[in-house]
Amino acid sequence: MSAAITLPAGVELCHLPAQFPLAHGGVLAGASLAFERQGPVDAPVVVVLGGISAGRHVSAHRAVQGPGWWEGFVGEGQAIDTARYSVLSFDWLGGAGCSTAPASGESFPFVGTEDQAAALAHLLTALRIEKVAALVGSSYGGMVGLQFAAAFPQRVARLFAIAAPHESHPQASAWRAVQRGIVELGLRTGTASEALALARGLAMATYRTPGELADRFSGPATWQGERVRLPVQDWLDARGAEFADRWLPEQFLCLCASIDAHRVDPARIAVPCWLAAFVGDQLVPPPQVRELASRLPNLRAVREVRSRYGHDAFLKERLAVAALLREVLA
Amino acid sequence: MSAAITLPAGVELCHLPAQFPLAHGGVLAGASLAFERQGPVDAPVVVVLGGISAGRHVSAHRAVQGPGWWEGFVGEGQAIDTARYSVLSFDWLGGAGCSTAPASGESFPFVGTEDQAAALAHLLTALRIEKVAALVGSSYGGMVGLQFAAAFPQRVARLFAIAAPHESHPQASAWRAVQRGIVELGLRTGTASEALALARGLAMATYRTPGELADRFSGPATWQGERVRLPVQDWLDARGAEFADRWLPEQFLCLCASIDAHRVDPARIAVPCWLAAFVGDQLVPPPQVRELASRLPNLRAVREVRSRYGHDAFLKERLAVAALLREVLA
Repeated sequence: MSAAITLPAGVELCHLPAQFPLAHGGVLAGASLAFERQGPVDAPVVVVLGGISAGRHVSAHRAVQGPGWWEGFVGEGQAIDTARYSVLSFDWLGGAGCSTAPASGESFPFVGTEDQAAALAHLLTALRIEKVAALVGSSYGGMVGLQFAAAFPQRVARLFAIAAPHESHPQASAWRAVQRGIVELGLRTGTASEALALARGLAMATYRTPGELADRFSGPATWQGERVRLPVQDWLDARGAEFADRWLPEQFLCLCASIDAHRVDPARIAVPCWLAAFVGDQLVPPPQVRELASRLPNLRAVREVRSRYGHDAFLKERLAVAALLREVLA
Repeated sequence: MSAAITLPAGVELCHLPAQFPLAHGGVLAGASLAFERQGPVDAPVVVVLGGISAGRHVSAHRAVQGPGWWEGFVGEGQAIDTARYSVLSFDWLGGAGCSTAPASGESFPFVGTEDQAAALAHLLTALRIEKVAALVGSSYGGMVGLQFAAAFPQRVARLFAIAAPHESHPQASAWRAVQRGIVELGLRTGTASEALALARGLAMATYRTPGELADRFSGPATWQGERVRLPVQDWLDARGAEFADRWLPEQFLCLCASIDAHRVDPARIAVPCWLAAFVGDQLVPPPQVRELASRLPNLRAVREVRSRYGHDAFLKERLAVAALLREVLA
């Protein structure tokens, strides 16, 4: 639980076993997990996990004051109340945070959602947390939550998986396969950063709904010489460039593939489960979440929320999602 | 109406005016339009236009026996009956057929849907066809049909626009902007063919519905070393490679941009119009077609057909679309 490297303030580091075996073959050698806690140390623990670009810093608190990725959901008096719960989160293995991840040009073993779940189990052991009160995971974090509940049922009292299926949908995988193809082409041609921005633009084009994009980006094309430019492109380009500034292409490839290979048998998940799906989600369509629900042996509730934000509703529909969080934690 | 270059059998060529002015600036010099006719020459004319990858050869007939892109819809005894109608179609300017289009490495002016419509008007004049009985256009062909009806109302008795809006939807434009970005990256890095295949894979990923892809491509990932491969990728790759064999990247860029810049004021379209939309179409969502319908001064009917084939339903839902064709031509 100490680091030889310089870490940002508030980050704690948990060393995984020197040879950390991976579910699909290979090992991670000398890996560590960056995590963050807020709330009373002796309170019941809620693990909060988000999408591939979410990390250990869930929301602002005394020790780490910058905004987190789930502001308004987690904090004192919020739906996940840090006066009552100790909130724990970590950076994904292989991702752009402070956990072990590929460096530029480095080949890296495949890290599955099972491996993220196993790493979380190690983290809990290191922190002497036998069992968490709840694991709340959205998107990729929900996939990891499903794996965790399947593999370590004795360590989690309840699971809330938001916009997270038991396996990736072929429609979503098709879009992500193209994203990886773009980044691989970029790596081979020395244009990885540009390719990564383009791939992230494609991802952004799948996170929302046609209705939301129409509301924001209707309007005529403009011309730059013979090149046509659409209003929506400024948004895709800006979000893409931001992402390419923070991520290495190898890290994106690692987590993007991890999503697509995700697969867990719902029958193996005995933990009490709550599920949420968003009507309009193009990546995790509600019928798929309903199928997961129908196959869970210990389903408590499956909720559907209509949202113009599509898959991103877990970040944007604060009131609706907070109400569900309160239901799960009641 | 003669060509100095060698053309495939059955192709006829119509020379456009030596300086053919383009709606958004520039001219096409010495351009020509490749077209094909079937059915009795003196019968009422139905113009049939399809997507950007559809061309002059609509269906097999005596003079050109290979299969066309709309087999089962057009022919003797079919919904568009070539015993009763003379069917006319042409290759898009800028596309992969035999009409004028960019060569490899060639810069080419922007060709709008207005320009395709103007070219069709020239073709009709050259063929001494004053007015067509119907223009039936699907996808890009429907966009061109809307422009034609707006610009040349005296030359078309009825318009049937299938899965074709008055302007591109920002959701669809977002996906296509990424496709052009991929191809432009490929052109700059000497990997244009590979990039074009990838871009076409992305297009394929938007043509169908999540349900159809789930039915065909559910199944676990496989690994090639550390690289994950999904069942859906074989299909994307195969369709992409086929496309890249037939198209130059410059031609794809030309027509892809033409779709996105398409914009016509429905109030200008006085011709009797029939519209069809497909529930499940991710590129031309039915609400957009309903909006077009509500703004057309001479709407005869707007029909919605639920299809697991999404945008591709105009190619796949033979019975439903044939019934609509019979209604329009009755």
